[in-house]
Amino acid sequence: METQKQLTIGLFGFGVVGEGLYKVLNQTPSLNATIKKVCIKNYGKKRDAPASLFTTEKEELLNDRDINVIVEVIDDTEAAFDIVSTAMKNGKDVVSASKKMIAEYFTELLALQKETGKSLLYEAAACASIPVIRNLEEYYDYDLLQSVRAIVNGSTNYMLTKIIDEGLDFKQALLQAQQLGFAESNPTLDVEGYDAVNKWAFLLTHAYGIVEKTDALLFNGIQNIHATDAVVANEKNQEIKLVAQAQKLKNGKVAAFVLPQFVNQNDHLAFVKNEYNGVVIESGFADKQFFYGKGAGSFPTASAVLSDISALRYEYKYEYKKLYHHQPHALSNDIFLRVYVSFDDISLIPKENFEWIEEWHAREERKYLVGIISVASLHGKNWWKENGVSLILLPEPVIEEIETRKLKQRSLELAGIVN
Amino acid sequence: METQKQLTIGLFGFGVVGEGLYKVLNQTPSLNATIKKVCIKNYGKKRDAPASLFTTEKEELLNDRDINVIVEVIDDTEAAFDIVSTAMKNGKDVVSASKKMIAEYFTELLALQKETGKSLLYEAAACASIPVIRNLEEYYDYDLLQSVRAIVNGSTNYMLTKIIDEGLDFKQALLQAQQLGFAESNPTLDVEGYDAVNKWAFLLTHAYGIVEKTDALLFNGIQNIHATDAVVANEKNQEIKLVAQAQKLKNGKVAAFVLPQFVNQNDHLAFVKNEYNGVVIESGFADKQFFYGKGAGSFPTASAVLSDISALRYEYKYEYKKLYHHQPHALSNDIFLRVYVSFDDISLIPKENFEWIEEWHAREERKYLVGIISVASLHGKNWWKENGVSLILLPEPVIEEIETRKLKQRSLELAGIVN
Repeated sequence: METQKQLTIGLFGFGVVGEGLYKVLNQTPSLNATIKKVCIKNYGKKRDAPASLFTTEKEELLNDRDINVIVEVIDDTEAAFDIVSTAMKNGKDVVSASKKMIAEYFTELLALQKETGKSLLYEAAACASIPVIRNLEEYYDYDLLQSVRAIVNGSTNYMLTKIIDEGLDFKQALLQAQQLGFAESNPTLDVEGYDAVNKWAFLLTHAYGIVEKTDALLFNGIQNIHATDAVVANEKNQEIKLVAQAQKLKNGKVAAFVLPQFVNQNDHLAFVKNEYNGVVIESGFADKQFFYGKGAGSFPTASAVLSDISALRYEYKYEYKKLYHHQPHALSNDIFLRVYVSFDDISLIPKENFEWIEEWHAREERKYLVGIISVASLHGKNWWKENGVSLILLPEPVIEEIETRKLKQRSLELAGIVN
Repeated sequence: METQKQLTIGLFGFGVVGEGLYKVLNQTPSLNATIKKVCIKNYGKKRDAPASLFTTEKEELLNDRDINVIVEVIDDTEAAFDIVSTAMKNGKDVVSASKKMIAEYFTELLALQKETGKSLLYEAAACASIPVIRNLEEYYDYDLLQSVRAIVNGSTNYMLTKIIDEGLDFKQALLQAQQLGFAESNPTLDVEGYDAVNKWAFLLTHAYGIVEKTDALLFNGIQNIHATDAVVANEKNQEIKLVAQAQKLKNGKVAAFVLPQFVNQNDHLAFVKNEYNGVVIESGFADKQFFYGKGAGSFPTASAVLSDISALRYEYKYEYKKLYHHQPHALSNDIFLRVYVSFDDISLIPKENFEWIEEWHAREERKYLVGIISVASLHGKNWWKENGVSLILLPEPVIEEIETRKLKQRSLELAGIVN
């Protein structure tokens, strides 16, 4: 038997994830990992572990030379970055589950990894238990990824399932999600797409070597999904999903966005219901793989943290192969999208921004259109995010060769087939 | 940019997989991999590549010092082993897609890897494009795997889909599978479960460190699935799948088998239709992940071979962590199974071998029973594989604590609730 590294862990946070980890590591000596000290905010709560295990002083962990791994499962973004960066500078490997922190400080964290040579693993921050980072890094370690499409936020997917499949309205769906613990009491981060785009930003680095802030990506949440949209989805036998998508273009660049999307029943993502997450990877030879698992909750998160801890025994590090070993891809917003837009008041819709409009449903109280619009004309604009306007992508929404399409559209118009 | 290893490849086989690889590697210089020479059986066919690329002399590849990687995508088991072992002894890394060869020579291949220090990768041999080996090795690199359940044979899954969901009879289903190229003209290997158990044998090593020949595993194919079985499945709104299963027991050992199984609609494996494969991994914290993709065909196979080639640029090797770095698990056949058995002639069924019988359906022309039987009493026996007897596991088929169950069953009998 080769020697594995013995891990002595300092743990930040002792909620369900932290306590679960403590128990599993205690019961599994073969993991060669012991929690030496746990840092908590305050001693108030009664905890099912020896009192001597706990401290409220972060330095007790960060300055302990015996501790070679810091595991951080806390909620506070700034505090988490402080802990993670200090730990790495102090020569410790780190496992983190803080997606917002990873996304916001990504450039700094890349630099810290280079500078310290320490490992920072954060599989739990992406799709909880689905090993998406690990597979993008290790298995799809070439530049032949055609596309990655994913549902990365469990709360909104739970709500959409209730709205589309079970006919609940938005408020009822949100209330149910909150009651089940899938959504925070302030659900803005999830519902308005911030959580999803945070994850998508750093997954783009592992998929394509793209390092961008979230504001470079077109994104929205599900806050404007209207009962009419659900009716339309059901009529077409489609689902509405909040889809994070990245797709290689003919010019070698990558288009990426996080937007609600109608998906057909034969799309793997239609299978992803309730609080689950799913990832569809289209790789070389046009072959598709689908990864599926719980995207939120304490067990899936603890499960991913455990895999990361376990990998540290073999000194595993993300190599960021697409960024450092390949020619990284550039992000492009130079594409057009096929969109559905529903609205109450036509004057809110800048029709002149559309390349062309394919469908027009104006008879009902709530109106909608289907048209082609450039990403550039959506970027930085708010008309499609506010005043009850709901923009949803159609299946296969990306159009690259707009000129060809335009000519075709024009000839159809001239022939009187469409108008 | 760190330096990647430059790969100079000798390729054995130029069918659809081999030719596809040749084209992709040619079009993708960033992969740092060039095919120097291709060994084929004979020059007969016209091929879409320069004539100077081909040879019929294997030594031209195996003895070429420039060639540092041998990729082998041929059909002949003995020839494949000869090529692979010679290549490794000659200091070359190897990528193979020959599942039968990997299974039959597994012990020898383990020894060769140790002895030569060379890498042997064979992801394409397991579930084609699903990265199951890589994830079992790298992501589930601890001993907390509760179970792995999988559909690993695309041909039989295609046939079962046609039989159960579309009402075809066995012969029609087989004919369709053959017409679509999912089954060989001699389909015994697939249909009688040999292909599935071959794959399961070496996946057990990556999952649990178990190294066993296939005859240590209870297995069967789908050759005896009867129209009555399909009717029963439909009545219960269940599917029948050929499930490869491995499950950790309370005593720390692992039960493993490949048998037809009724699965409920909420089982992830029920989602796996037609020629697809799927793997459900239950890991620490009772969390489940599902991997899904095409299990057969030239594109998925080529896709997996390409990922393996790509990984060799970073000198990737299987470490067989469960075998060498952990305490390997032992295989146990000391369990009981809940089985459905349908038959025409009751005299073929050794009723005395059952612990107890829960259901008895004798009125129809084709009869069936549901009962509890030990693996030991099935092992090495043929009554349940021949003369049209069809044995199918029920959902959650494994019973460990037979004594407790027996007592409970007896008390129910005494109470007159069952008999």
